Amino acid sequence: MSDKVLIYSRLPKSLTQRFADRFELLDSGGKPAHEVLPADEVAQIRALITAGGTPLGADDMDRLPALGAIVCYGTGYDGVDLKAAAVRNIAVGHSPGANAAAVADVALMLMLASVRRLMVADPYVRNGGWAEAKPSPLMKPPPSLSGCKIGVYGMGEIGRKIAARVAAFETEIGYFNRTRYDDLPYQYFPSLDALAEWCTVLMIAVRAGADTTHVVNADILKKLGADGHVINISRGSVIDEGALVAALKGGTIAGAGLDVFETEPHVPGELTSLPNLVVTPHIGGNTRESHVAMQACVVANLTAFFAGQRLPYQVK
Amino acid sequence: MSDKVLIYSRLPKSLTQRFADRFELLDSGGKPAHEVLPADEVAQIRALITAGGTPLGADDMDRLPALGAIVCYGTGYDGVDLKAAAVRNIAVGHSPGANAAAVADVALMLMLASVRRLMVADPYVRNGGWAEAKPSPLMKPPPSLSGCKIGVYGMGEIGRKIAARVAAFETEIGYFNRTRYDDLPYQYFPSLDALAEWCTVLMIAVRAGADTTHVVNADILKKLGADGHVINISRGSVIDEGALVAALKGGTIAGAGLDVFETEPHVPGELTSLPNLVVTPHIGGNTRESHVAMQACVVANLTAFFAGQRLPYQVK
Repeated sequence: MSDKVLIYSRLPKSLTQRFADRFELLDSGGKPAHEVLPADEVAQIRALITAGGTPLGADDMDRLPALGAIVCYGTGYDGVDLKAAAVRNIAVGHSPGANAAAVADVALMLMLASVRRLMVADPYVRNGGWAEAKPSPLMKPPPSLSGCKIGVYGMGEIGRKIAARVAAFETEIGYFNRTRYDDLPYQYFPSLDALAEWCTVLMIAVRAGADTTHVVNADILKKLGADGHVINISRGSVIDEGALVAALKGGTIAGAGLDVFETEPHVPGELTSLPNLVVTPHIGGNTRESHVAMQACVVANLTAFFAGQRLPYQVK
Repeated sequence: MSDKVLIYSRLPKSLTQRFADRFELLDSGGKPAHEVLPADEVAQIRALITAGGTPLGADDMDRLPALGAIVCYGTGYDGVDLKAAAVRNIAVGHSPGANAAAVADVALMLMLASVRRLMVADPYVRNGGWAEAKPSPLMKPPPSLSGCKIGVYGMGEIGRKIAARVAAFETEIGYFNRTRYDDLPYQYFPSLDALAEWCTVLMIAVRAGADTTHVVNADILKKLGADGHVINISRGSVIDEGALVAALKGGTIAGAGLDVFETEPHVPGELTSLPNLVVTPHIGGNTRESHVAMQACVVANLTAFFAGQRLPYQVK
């Protein structure tokens, strides 16, 4: 059989070049393969590369009868129905940790930009408001980060890197995670509620799944308080976006920084029109070195699969 | 004699309230006192509060014949002619370190926003470019911060806090400072040239003065290279803004983040029109806790002065 690999999600060519050097790629441009590729080619697809957040359920798998490996580009695999894959004996791989530093950097950028109100500060200078001595949108000084209580929700590789960075800003750090780690010098909270009650800035780094959908809701946001900020670099599904809009509009919290959204790339207009928000188009892992590391995981997973071996970066 | 204190720079009322509780303030709204206040009041002014960057030379001092103390709000005092003050037996005070953490936070915010291109990323989401699958301005991934060489120019209290924060991002740190500190775990460079040759991101935290005017020039920027970024939270005078515009336009460096400018609040249009720039209106020290700490220094300096004592936070 051939080493035909389907590019399942819409991925720029610049990111798939390294795979094209090694495998025969079939790119359906993000559309279902059976709609755009000949049936005999679809029948030969044994492996696919997907962005972990793209929905990939039992029906999608059944349309690829030869499928034996689902390889996620990045650390996430929340779009993949793991049970359906297991039943069909399809291996699922990802790129654990490869982008953790880059994602943590974006989390810190969004935190600082939200707390120090960069998205109103920059236009105030750029559009001449400062030069013309117009009333400043920054008249009310924000609280300092030093001494601030930062809650990290999810203490995987990304959460740990976020905490290590945040600690350098002279903050207090607490975390909630299913597992409590005795090697970490941070205060542990037994629930997201308890963490939100304690902290002012909530950094979401939890692995997304059915159990985390909309767990950051109106109640959690209220607990952060009027000086509160919520930062999300995990998955959009973790936050109830409607509740977030209401909290930002009503002053329940001070601001938010989001790299991820419920229905990417669509972001509700009532969210993007808010001044106390900073947004990025899911660029957490988008650095040269992250891509190289993630691509190395993808190539290693595919190479092992086609050699009949276990994936080296298999989802547990 | 009365405890009359002139507000010399234009300062918002919200920042001077604590002084008004203790002293009789004369506020000339940033204009020369002799132009807006009665001559007999001007003659009684024994102390003034100024933003350290506001020009305050021998002539200005001579127009305030009773002046005995110049108290800078903040750590900077580069606008004050120290020799002229010494000759006239005028004490000069400031607020050393009171805002160091807050300023370092803004330095990190500007660094992250410049490297990860926040000022094009946010509008790409906000204006619908992402949702409409328009060509992304972020197609070319930037290099990761981890492993990146960061140069800190000036290793005072702010420089140290910048370095401590930057280190958490898994970077390499080098510095240039008049004094070499053996207690610091960072690589020392004997000149700004050598530091710029080595580093990719240059963080300017040097105390401004005649000897640092335009030291970050076309030559230094060229040494940073095409992936280079320059971040300035010190004073605008340190960078040759014309050379910076040319370097950003021509791709000599990748980006810049500026909280300070040569002629504040005026920022050249050819600078603010650039996409690879992030700017803030001199908000480095603008946090609640920083203002409280800076105001405490101002009150302590004025209280000591009017009691006939040496200023506790006197400029050395």
